[in-house]
Amino acid sequence: MDSQNIEARNGNDNVVFVGKKGVMSYVLAVVTQFNNGESSVVVKARGRAISRAVDVAEIVRQRFVQGVEPSDITIATEELQGDEGPIKVSAIEITLSR
Amino acid sequence: MDSQNIEARNGNDNVVFVGKKGVMSYVLAVVTQFNNGESSVVVKARGRAISRAVDVAEIVRQRFVQGVEPSDITIATEELQGDEGPIKVSAIEITLSR
Repeated sequence: MDSQNIEARNGNDNVVFVGKKGVMSYVLAVVTQFNNGESSVVVKARGRAISRAVDVAEIVRQRFVQGVEPSDITIATEELQGDEGPIKVSAIEITLSR
Repeated sequence: MDSQNIEARNGNDNVVFVGKKGVMSYVLAVVTQFNNGESSVVVKARGRAISRAVDVAEIVRQRFVQGVEPSDITIATEELQGDEGPIKVSAIEITLSR
């Protein structure tokens, strides 16, 4: 399941799943949610995209949406099905709230 | 200032700065601090190493030190001096406590 599928699945709710696209794609997605009236948006990522998720949260907060702060940050390990059995990847969820 | 200098600077205190080495180098550094009696260790990283810092925290917690949880996770933007002026990079601090 790639990031695009997850974004589609989440539809209009307040979750943005950060994958391999450029940082600004995800920044735009988060800013759009806030502009649609959401009071909080959850930025999620797995594996190497975790660094990008932190970039997204920081750019939204500092450049685009006034008064937004990370209200909760959690890390976890998720098990995915790889070609040769289950693999463990780290994951992050950053809740941005205003 | 590379990660090695920062590690040296921090000496014996309870901070591990995650840089470009393999994940297990940093896992070992964190486990050593806990084995030396620290009740909490702060795992720090900047830029792309942020994903690795999350891996380090998760591996320590799940495989090596019983009863350790991330008690605090903060993200921030730091300004570094690049060759062509200041550059902004994201940073993370994960406090592991038992």
